[in-house]
Amino acid sequence: MTREFDLIHRYFLPLASSHAARGLADDAAVFVPPAGRALVITKDMMAEAVHFLPDDPPETIGEKLIRVNMSDLAAMGAEPLGCVLGLGLALKTDDSWIAAFAKGLGNACAQFACPLLGGDTIRQPDRITLSLTAIGHVADGSALSRSGARAGDILAVTGEIGGAGLGLSLLQAGQGAKHPHAVQRYHLPEPRLAAGQGLVGIASAAADVSDGLLADAGHIAAASHIGVEINLDLLPLAEGVTDALHAATSGDDYELVVAVPPQHWQAALTICQQIGVNLTQIGQCVVGDGVQIRLADGTLTKLEKLGYQHG
Amino acid sequence: MTREFDLIHRYFLPLASSHAARGLADDAAVFVPPAGRALVITKDMMAEAVHFLPDDPPETIGEKLIRVNMSDLAAMGAEPLGCVLGLGLALKTDDSWIAAFAKGLGNACAQFACPLLGGDTIRQPDRITLSLTAIGHVADGSALSRSGARAGDILAVTGEIGGAGLGLSLLQAGQGAKHPHAVQRYHLPEPRLAAGQGLVGIASAAADVSDGLLADAGHIAAASHIGVEINLDLLPLAEGVTDALHAATSGDDYELVVAVPPQHWQAALTICQQIGVNLTQIGQCVVGDGVQIRLADGTLTKLEKLGYQHG
Repeated sequence: MTREFDLIHRYFLPLASSHAARGLADDAAVFVPPAGRALVITKDMMAEAVHFLPDDPPETIGEKLIRVNMSDLAAMGAEPLGCVLGLGLALKTDDSWIAAFAKGLGNACAQFACPLLGGDTIRQPDRITLSLTAIGHVADGSALSRSGARAGDILAVTGEIGGAGLGLSLLQAGQGAKHPHAVQRYHLPEPRLAAGQGLVGIASAAADVSDGLLADAGHIAAASHIGVEINLDLLPLAEGVTDALHAATSGDDYELVVAVPPQHWQAALTICQQIGVNLTQIGQCVVGDGVQIRLADGTLTKLEKLGYQHG
Repeated sequence: MTREFDLIHRYFLPLASSHAARGLADDAAVFVPPAGRALVITKDMMAEAVHFLPDDPPETIGEKLIRVNMSDLAAMGAEPLGCVLGLGLALKTDDSWIAAFAKGLGNACAQFACPLLGGDTIRQPDRITLSLTAIGHVADGSALSRSGARAGDILAVTGEIGGAGLGLSLLQAGQGAKHPHAVQRYHLPEPRLAAGQGLVGIASAAADVSDGLLADAGHIAAASHIGVEINLDLLPLAEGVTDALHAATSGDDYELVVAVPPQHWQAALTICQQIGVNLTQIGQCVVGDGVQIRLADGTLTKLEKLGYQHG
């Protein structure tokens, strides 16, 4: 117990600069939320050997834990307020791992103005399990959602697709040096906070691309009770990525997939251009359900026919 | 992925009745917090083979996960608003475990008016890791803390001590039937929400007894820059518990240990009597630091001299 207190004091107290964190000395964090704003609360877990590789640099794991949660806030159009860390260390996890993890976590907390408010540290027998709850805020009634898309809306995606999947494949094959940019995308996804905030009042629906572009577009379709058609030829593929279907079904890109009513499309492009993020039309919302792929010959096919099970 | 969506839909959507949860269909929960109130945010994790036994009934594990977090809110004098679940299932966890866990979780969510707002479900290779973030609220500026105790304050504890520790020992020895009440205390601790809320403005400091009475009284001492003296003869021992020092160093009781200025002591007793919870003086706050034990002959000794390392 004493050892865990020392650990928290040494590595995590410096990240808990917010008054709300009470110096990590209390049973909970306390803060008064901004008046007139809705709170947005999200949680993403990461488990060793599943969401990160045992020999991934701990600093990038700490960074990524914040970044993937920031991506959820981005998908709601929210600004970060703070976060609460659940640190399930393995019995064998040593201080150097914790120090590097905390350094990466702290860098991302600072970069995204999302201070550590509190949390819990445990030891468990096998491997590391990380849990982060991120809290953000957005004007009341303005949060983006998955459920607002309508038939006729343009379907678009920010940035580039497939880079993280390529990076993971290369890392697993021990060939990370081949495409350092792709490896970087896997280790340090770029949450699209500014784009999400900028698209409040412009986009009709949004989701972040964590499960894969087709799966997350499917989430919008299901929540909005519409169908989506995606043209694989239109996907903005990351450098080194050649297989669009593979790119669209691999996860971890943490771009935003959004639906935009045609009359707002120009505004959406302008906002994203001001922010410096590409926004690319990849298809459209239609009457129907599920995700369909438009092939090169113009015909439509259901995903399942391409041998893919979507979420 | 489809299987996890089905799981969430079947077992957890019924617990997410709050509008804030958005039918668990979005990347995050959204809600407007009560005006003029401070938010209180806490997180407690529970790992298989550490915080619960592999053959503990999953229903009681779900109940306990909510209850231990409610205990943190109780220690701050807060009322529950909602919770966010991090469900780290093992690869081998079957549907019947999940169904029973969700039932227990749902019972506790309903009992403590703390609806599920969202969360994340993952699969990991080895064992189950659970993480819960609970959100509560309290009048701005009124939250109890560990840091408000002053020399001269009365040190007191709610309810009974040592029951959970006895229950765990019996379970580990396969003798749970000997003291079902103690086993119940271990499986289903009673968060002292009403007492914590009632003691706002009366107690000068509070902590919940999760690490053990002496350790948690020590947290108050450290945070308040005072010492505490505890008279083991005064401890309200649970039925079947005979060793007061063992009771005071075993965790999981989830009672509240509080400091109360002498002029508020009668009010504290009255409030707790109205709620139906015993409040027992066990010692006092003094100038100094750390925890000292008053022995039967009236002398004081530091914990370390009794062979105990506190947290």
